[in-house]
Amino acid sequence: MDRCNLNIKEGYFKLTERYLFSDIRKKVNDYKKEYGKEVIDMSVGDVAYPIPRIAVDAMITASREMGDNVRKRGYPPENGYDFLRNALADRYFKNGVNISTDEILIGDGSKTDVALFADIFDNPATVIIEPCYPVYIDCALMSGRRVYNLHGNKNNYFLPLPDELEKQPYVIYLCSPNNPTGASYDKKGLEKWIDFANETESIILFDAAYSAFARKDFVKSVYEIKGARKCAVEFGSFSKFAGFTGLRCSWTLIPKDLKIGEKRLLEVVKRRKSAIFNGVSYVTQRAAQAVLSDKGCMECSEIINKYLSCSKLLRKYLVDKGIFATGGENCPYLWAECPNGVSSYDFFENMLLNSKVVCTPGAGFGASGEGFIRLSCFQTEETVLKALSNFKLSGIFD
Amino acid sequence: MDRCNLNIKEGYFKLTERYLFSDIRKKVNDYKKEYGKEVIDMSVGDVAYPIPRIAVDAMITASREMGDNVRKRGYPPENGYDFLRNALADRYFKNGVNISTDEILIGDGSKTDVALFADIFDNPATVIIEPCYPVYIDCALMSGRRVYNLHGNKNNYFLPLPDELEKQPYVIYLCSPNNPTGASYDKKGLEKWIDFANETESIILFDAAYSAFARKDFVKSVYEIKGARKCAVEFGSFSKFAGFTGLRCSWTLIPKDLKIGEKRLLEVVKRRKSAIFNGVSYVTQRAAQAVLSDKGCMECSEIINKYLSCSKLLRKYLVDKGIFATGGENCPYLWAECPNGVSSYDFFENMLLNSKVVCTPGAGFGASGEGFIRLSCFQTEETVLKALSNFKLSGIFD
Repeated sequence: MDRCNLNIKEGYFKLTERYLFSDIRKKVNDYKKEYGKEVIDMSVGDVAYPIPRIAVDAMITASREMGDNVRKRGYPPENGYDFLRNALADRYFKNGVNISTDEILIGDGSKTDVALFADIFDNPATVIIEPCYPVYIDCALMSGRRVYNLHGNKNNYFLPLPDELEKQPYVIYLCSPNNPTGASYDKKGLEKWIDFANETESIILFDAAYSAFARKDFVKSVYEIKGARKCAVEFGSFSKFAGFTGLRCSWTLIPKDLKIGEKRLLEVVKRRKSAIFNGVSYVTQRAAQAVLSDKGCMECSEIINKYLSCSKLLRKYLVDKGIFATGGENCPYLWAECPNGVSSYDFFENMLLNSKVVCTPGAGFGASGEGFIRLSCFQTEETVLKALSNFKLSGIFD
Repeated sequence: MDRCNLNIKEGYFKLTERYLFSDIRKKVNDYKKEYGKEVIDMSVGDVAYPIPRIAVDAMITASREMGDNVRKRGYPPENGYDFLRNALADRYFKNGVNISTDEILIGDGSKTDVALFADIFDNPATVIIEPCYPVYIDCALMSGRRVYNLHGNKNNYFLPLPDELEKQPYVIYLCSPNNPTGASYDKKGLEKWIDFANETESIILFDAAYSAFARKDFVKSVYEIKGARKCAVEFGSFSKFAGFTGLRCSWTLIPKDLKIGEKRLLEVVKRRKSAIFNGVSYVTQRAAQAVLSDKGCMECSEIINKYLSCSKLLRKYLVDKGIFATGGENCPYLWAECPNGVSSYDFFENMLLNSKVVCTPGAGFGASGEGFIRLSCFQTEETVLKALSNFKLSGIFD
């Protein structure tokens, strides 16, 4: 037997020491201790409004069931209860997309769902569009994959296309409406990506966590694009759509048409999930079902519109100041250029000190984010107006 | 750029086609359709009694908070709320084990928690004791590790020791009280494992999901053994202890003393978790906190005692019949030899057809399980008495 040492994988040493948002949380807490509590947190994309009433009621009913001898539920099906998968399939159908129930896998958050794909493929070439949500890059580093960064910038409005990629198979991460830039591919842009993927036998991991915010002319699902069923996996989340950040529920769509060699990807992922995951709380799944009802969706839409009003207010302020910004229209994130060539971490500190507003430094989302910040408008109007007033008083964007 | 194809990792093709329990569920459902509903399911280790009342009340209160503008909670801390981590540290302290709050990571189930370690180490030699819970072997296969099986058998009462292992570093999976065999290492046995691990710089992943069932002379935590803080990670679960199979909550203990080279394993795992996991539902964590209170633990103990009464009844029946069996004393699993040299899958079918009782075929837990079956006594007394009566009538164990 070959003696081999026990080592941590090399990729782990390439990670940033701390996860971006843990880092920011720590800094803000330190600041609050020193300067009091009047800090407006626009960094983490957490929601300002609670979950809809209909979800609370569903959880109370489900909790009571769990305490009842007859009605209690044991291990959930690892891919989710049919009542929830059917409700999702119905909701897609109403939006013009045909997805069958058994192509839907319920999970406990998009982060987990996206990460599940990190170790399925044999050392694939991976395309990541920078700036990006850290999970894509962290997972790629931990699993030791070769990463090709496509860079978002002012010229491409942070929406790069596959033109400059060599034609070979990749695993491609796309997020639209985008976190952190708020930018959204229109149909033509997504068509280019889907065509490229089908031509090169690549797979697209499409993060649609913010799709509920996409307005007309922008897709709510990648399957609105022809050919997507052959190459794209879609991740959806209840976090932003229904305020479930504290409850943890999400879904993954894997069309049966999607094959890797002879294998259906759906079957591979289901097998992996059955080995490493035991499903989502029954109580949470009932809450998720409730927000997919017509009444639930209406309540969610009202809140979504409030967030988008906030982001429009902020966008207008920035544009009036002559600041280059993406987002705010199909996504409550604003991605704004730091004035006067200041670095993103310096501007983060300036804004905290002078305007008492916390943003996320763009460089935290990858090198292409340098010189930019992200502002989250998952806020009440009152909060955004206060932030705008602080910006005006401090002249931070002048 | 090297062109490389997009392939599924080789290890995935070595997995059994379906996950063991999905397979059994399907067979039982087919049988029910054909032969009616009077089937007694003793296969999956799911619980018969609902969660304690105190947990239901905690969930209802927490659900109401989630609907409230002021009291709602957003993203949970990814390692768990301090209220729950403190409650766990207190409970360990009362059992004589010192664990600090920041050595405790809250998760959504032991399966997920155990699987999280699959990809941290650089292709380590892995020791698995067969028969075993499928997640250990499935994860090892998917990540392409070299696996050394230690075989449980009648001679070692399914509790093999490290004597026959070459001295080199390994990742060692231990589960005690054991799933599926119900066998439990006594202190001396565990001391041998801990000493071996410290001597060889191995790491032990100790699955303590059934520790609440361990009676006197058997440890409730691996940290009762001297030296364990330097080499062992412990996994705990609310599933069997408090009936949380449908709610999903668990914990991982990683002592600060545990280092891999220069790195504290705790820091590596926390960093991995921050990248791929967004925490457990606030509502669930409140329920978990409730069952750790003195009142909650008392309610749980009553149910645990009921399950152990059931397993003692079954054990007595088997022993009286002259059947070799492990378990049933520190764990509600009975691991019984199939009479007359019948294979485990044949005996599973015989038992279903003749006694209308579903067991789990031992071969599903690895080749060493051939010739045995697992019976779960997470049942009411009524159910076990009915099963015993069916066994008598059918003469299945004669």
